Amino acid sequence: MNRIYFNEVATRDGFQIEPNFIPTDQKIELIDALSQCGYAKVEVTSFTSPKAIPMLKDAEEVMSRIQRNPKVEYSVLVPNLRGAQRALDSKADELNLVMSTSETHNRSNLRMGREESFSALREVIEFINGRIPINVSLSTAFGCPMEGDVPQDVVMNYVSRFDNLGVRGVTICDTTGMAQPVQVKKMIDVLHNQFKHLQLTMHFHNTRGMGLANILASVESGITRFDGSLGGLGGCPYAPGASGNVCSEDAIHMVDAMGYDTGIQLDALLSIAKGLPRIVGHDIPGQVAKAGRIHDLHPEPPCQ
Amino acid sequence: MNRIYFNEVATRDGFQIEPNFIPTDQKIELIDALSQCGYAKVEVTSFTSPKAIPMLKDAEEVMSRIQRNPKVEYSVLVPNLRGAQRALDSKADELNLVMSTSETHNRSNLRMGREESFSALREVIEFINGRIPINVSLSTAFGCPMEGDVPQDVVMNYVSRFDNLGVRGVTICDTTGMAQPVQVKKMIDVLHNQFKHLQLTMHFHNTRGMGLANILASVESGITRFDGSLGGLGGCPYAPGASGNVCSEDAIHMVDAMGYDTGIQLDALLSIAKGLPRIVGHDIPGQVAKAGRIHDLHPEPPCQ
Repeated sequence: MNRIYFNEVATRDGFQIEPNFIPTDQKIELIDALSQCGYAKVEVTSFTSPKAIPMLKDAEEVMSRIQRNPKVEYSVLVPNLRGAQRALDSKADELNLVMSTSETHNRSNLRMGREESFSALREVIEFINGRIPINVSLSTAFGCPMEGDVPQDVVMNYVSRFDNLGVRGVTICDTTGMAQPVQVKKMIDVLHNQFKHLQLTMHFHNTRGMGLANILASVESGITRFDGSLGGLGGCPYAPGASGNVCSEDAIHMVDAMGYDTGIQLDALLSIAKGLPRIVGHDIPGQVAKAGRIHDLHPEPPCQ
Repeated sequence: MNRIYFNEVATRDGFQIEPNFIPTDQKIELIDALSQCGYAKVEVTSFTSPKAIPMLKDAEEVMSRIQRNPKVEYSVLVPNLRGAQRALDSKADELNLVMSTSETHNRSNLRMGREESFSALREVIEFINGRIPINVSLSTAFGCPMEGDVPQDVVMNYVSRFDNLGVRGVTICDTTGMAQPVQVKKMIDVLHNQFKHLQLTMHFHNTRGMGLANILASVESGITRFDGSLGGLGGCPYAPGASGNVCSEDAIHMVDAMGYDTGIQLDALLSIAKGLPRIVGHDIPGQVAKAGRIHDLHPEPPCQ
């Protein structure tokens, strides 16, 4: 049976844009629960400036107090050298670096040009010097909400340059839900041809409803690693009212129903997802937590 | 360029479970607008008893007052002989008959056993006697919310029996969103092997988020006809809070982005979809009406 690996990003990518601070105890309780569900990886938090992302200002405390499951890799987002040192001090299992493949989006999101970002991330990689594995998330790889198309060659060029710096993996991110399945398959074919030795992860958003279709296209193309965000947390500032990150439990439910081994205990995960609206204080886009699994049967309605 | 045909079912399958009566004028205005978008077919209304479905009690008036576009087929749902006569009188272009492939669902939904339904529909087909084309929608073909699995053989048996009665087409309906892509591909392979001469349509629900993934699987398997419901109108009574029918504009947007010719003017359709919450009085699940098309670019945010 083919294995598919999921990386849960809700407590970093999801929480970072929540309007209300989620108490540290609740974050830890959630991560500890997720750690018992069978995830391959959890992106716990971000070692960014607390001024830039106040929601994640408790990164050190969260990392020090979670109960680590040895079967799970605990990854943290790191924007610079200072973040890298904090990640090392917190004994993260993986560093996730991020930059955009679109100049405009990189400037808008990270306040610098792409080459400046690349240099800063190269410094981090050289500083880490193989002490822990590094993943690079490449944003807007399927399109930029301000520039439009991002040529596939541009994406491949960044993958290649990070590959040359010795990173373990790259995540190809559809940051604002612009990817469509034909494009996804083309991208993966090239990635598999040129970078089969890299750990390849796909990160999709459901902004235009295509999140699970793009996961299907990826699975059919041989991809085995995906980011997902519990409940679909994590929005897109460019599309108010639209969905954000692909919902972990919906994606895992589909892949599981298709016959793949996700390693995830879906019932436990759905039980956690059902509690998420209480934690964040609003409804979540995920469907399976509301509708139940395919084979959760319903009683016959009474005669009317 | 491959052509994909869409059948819009919102004013029948969507409206029939809306809580508040939608005025006849508004229904007609909506159908007339949809008629100009490039749909292959519109399922306008249902000739059921006004007591059973009060929302569609104006079926005759709607059918007589819509402005017909000769490029569009206007289909109506018909449950019995009386409905068939009403459909003939209203000059419908196609009759859509419906029964469930699950005994329990058929009893719960239509208040009779499957064989009783089959006999009633055979009577309709014999009464029509080739005067207008007939389509049969087979519900719960991918699973029943009360019984669980519906064996594929059972579905194929009903397809075959209706085929023998001379219907033009069948619609394979995932009535409560239980289908997953691997199952969809298996089903379509058998349909294509045995019933290539029938007009085959797939009808998906997004109850568990898999609607567009199942459309992708179908397109990859050579299916060219789909039902869709504007805005995703049409819920599932078994899953409160969950999505219902697959959203037409989201499905059309994806297939269009993949390079297929849907014949649909997507901008006009999205403009209609944006007005739908005003007509039905509540938010709609569709994503593209909120997020815009893939290449609807956004201005760069101001420096902060």
